[in-house]
Amino acid sequence: MKIEELITCPETKARTGRIETDHGSINTPVFMPVGTAGSVKSLSPVDLLETGSQIILGNTYHLLLRPGMEIMESAGGLHKFMSWAGPILTDSGGYQVFSLGQLNKITEEGVVFQSRIDGSKHSLSPEISMDIQRVLGSDIVMAFDECTPYPATPQQAQTSMELTHRWEQRSLSYFRSTQPKYGHGQQLFGIVQGSVYPELRKVSAQTLVDMDFDGYAIGGLSVGEPKADMYEITEVVTEHLPQDQPRYLMGVGKPEDLVEAVSLGIDMFDCVLPTRNARHGIMFTWDGPVSLKAAREKDAHIPLDADCRCYSCQNFSRAYLRHLFKASELLVYRLASIHNVHFYHELMSTMRQSIIAGAFPAFKRDFFARYNLKRAELKSSL
Amino acid sequence: MKIEELITCPETKARTGRIETDHGSINTPVFMPVGTAGSVKSLSPVDLLETGSQIILGNTYHLLLRPGMEIMESAGGLHKFMSWAGPILTDSGGYQVFSLGQLNKITEEGVVFQSRIDGSKHSLSPEISMDIQRVLGSDIVMAFDECTPYPATPQQAQTSMELTHRWEQRSLSYFRSTQPKYGHGQQLFGIVQGSVYPELRKVSAQTLVDMDFDGYAIGGLSVGEPKADMYEITEVVTEHLPQDQPRYLMGVGKPEDLVEAVSLGIDMFDCVLPTRNARHGIMFTWDGPVSLKAAREKDAHIPLDADCRCYSCQNFSRAYLRHLFKASELLVYRLASIHNVHFYHELMSTMRQSIIAGAFPAFKRDFFARYNLKRAELKSSL
Repeated sequence: MKIEELITCPETKARTGRIETDHGSINTPVFMPVGTAGSVKSLSPVDLLETGSQIILGNTYHLLLRPGMEIMESAGGLHKFMSWAGPILTDSGGYQVFSLGQLNKITEEGVVFQSRIDGSKHSLSPEISMDIQRVLGSDIVMAFDECTPYPATPQQAQTSMELTHRWEQRSLSYFRSTQPKYGHGQQLFGIVQGSVYPELRKVSAQTLVDMDFDGYAIGGLSVGEPKADMYEITEVVTEHLPQDQPRYLMGVGKPEDLVEAVSLGIDMFDCVLPTRNARHGIMFTWDGPVSLKAAREKDAHIPLDADCRCYSCQNFSRAYLRHLFKASELLVYRLASIHNVHFYHELMSTMRQSIIAGAFPAFKRDFFARYNLKRAELKSSL
Repeated sequence: MKIEELITCPETKARTGRIETDHGSINTPVFMPVGTAGSVKSLSPVDLLETGSQIILGNTYHLLLRPGMEIMESAGGLHKFMSWAGPILTDSGGYQVFSLGQLNKITEEGVVFQSRIDGSKHSLSPEISMDIQRVLGSDIVMAFDECTPYPATPQQAQTSMELTHRWEQRSLSYFRSTQPKYGHGQQLFGIVQGSVYPELRKVSAQTLVDMDFDGYAIGGLSVGEPKADMYEITEVVTEHLPQDQPRYLMGVGKPEDLVEAVSLGIDMFDCVLPTRNARHGIMFTWDGPVSLKAAREKDAHIPLDADCRCYSCQNFSRAYLRHLFKASELLVYRLASIHNVHFYHELMSTMRQSIIAGAFPAFKRDFFARYNLKRAELKSSL
């Protein structure tokens, strides 16, 4: 998998291009909304398209537990099941086993865990994860890795990384020995680990590049480490990844993180933040986050952002949205999610345009000047 | 307010026509989705239009308590607040005070009650209800009545009805002495009471017709009385209402109730059933209600109704909707509500067409043959 028509902004590492999948093209850098259980929470496929979504993420762990692979296979895969015709990326399931699951056992072979839903026992291994992602039919498949816990000593991080490398080699070999199920192609991404240690990260990146994946992800960040570490590791890793292949920073992040990481050469992101915050009334704007539950919004008969072209801002006032939140009206979770997902996509689109125009450094400076200022104000008033 | 281009189906009392409001025309018979707190639960204005909604209902009681009339007035009324450009009917608030509120006192003047939300004290009277509905700016305003409790003795029913008549006369006089606030006209409907006693209902209908309202509603039904009583009273009342004005059966009902009541000459309905049942996974079809939570749907990769043109049936399978219900995914409450509201509107539209074609008796016979048969099957399998 190549990044086509790659343009790098002079004096920075920020880059824009296009990834091709059998379910359509993706303009990068791109943000992928998270459709955990076969649905990006509260949003329909039409909502996703109207907010500007190009590709969404599905969670192997959740779909394995419910509805289960028998139903996913008889449905003909995740695209058909959820009626999403665009590209899908699925994770390997490993991260959720470590962070959410009741992990019973971890061996060289893989992991055994219990379902949070019904207590049933399940296994995941590189081969099982590849089989599941073949059944899901995602356009981009993630290799099975161990997400190194944070904090980890250098020795713990190295041991974990080396296990990850063996699992990723098995993922790759098994993936290449199997075929897609539904007539469209699938690509496999490797995941760089190594915790916050630049030397390990460099080794991990080089090891994976030697294996020759279709694209490369950076895992094990945004797990509690200082922001400076996250950016430093991102920079170290991208230096050791191929220029012409996609780079995906997993589970990141806040708008400011996306801007920083794009400037370090990242192409792809996913995060639950825009949808999760929406459900709690925290709305993203170019002036920083705004709480729609705040008392000051009660008679604010103006849009959240008068310049925003999303359905919610075009039709509803802050006062109405606040009223719906206060009344726990279901409609508001969707309206708020539409705005936040649209904002994330607008942010990415603006970055793409600024890179093409050779103006990314100016964009970044202006973004932080505006975004940070107002956030500081908000913090003191919340 | 007149029913324009009124057509009555030969050999029946079923009728179709058109009501004009300053927010658009309404083809009758019509079903009005209930937008209790300024939102038809889970549905946006676009969803309402796409399901075929012509007019929606707003609840004075809920909007009075939250967001309150100060915010409703600064918003410029309910249409602007919720971004619904079509007609709105508001109730008087009385019914909810009796059924939901903590009623403190009822006098000749009106009622005093406490808010369920914050315990604050509120009053409603004919004059206050008219003032509130002027602020809401609904196209159709309901007179303030007492919903006679069921069961009631003939004496209780008569006493309650006579109070209702005095309140309705005050509603009418006060309404006529005030003006709309937002440049569009408002019409006032009277409400016939009299419990299950045909003689009282006849007196009530004649009394209200003498007062000369813009339209007439039948209140105090669907409150626990036998179905036979509901239909008998509906028939008695419609016989004493003007042919050329709209007739509204409040709070009704199930699809079979709508068909029966249309055959008795009713033009307008409202009910929370399509949206409430949707949120519980009970879906309406021409073959009767279907539970989407049933285990047998888990691998039903077919639409709920292959002939249905709603967004949900056009895009999603029973298996997917069941999965979303099991996972409590927010999306499903909207998808299910879209289907049920669309079904109700299709039912009304089919009835309108059958009346125009002079074929309503055949429609009614076919409807019950199909709907009842399958309902009986479902009951035994649930």
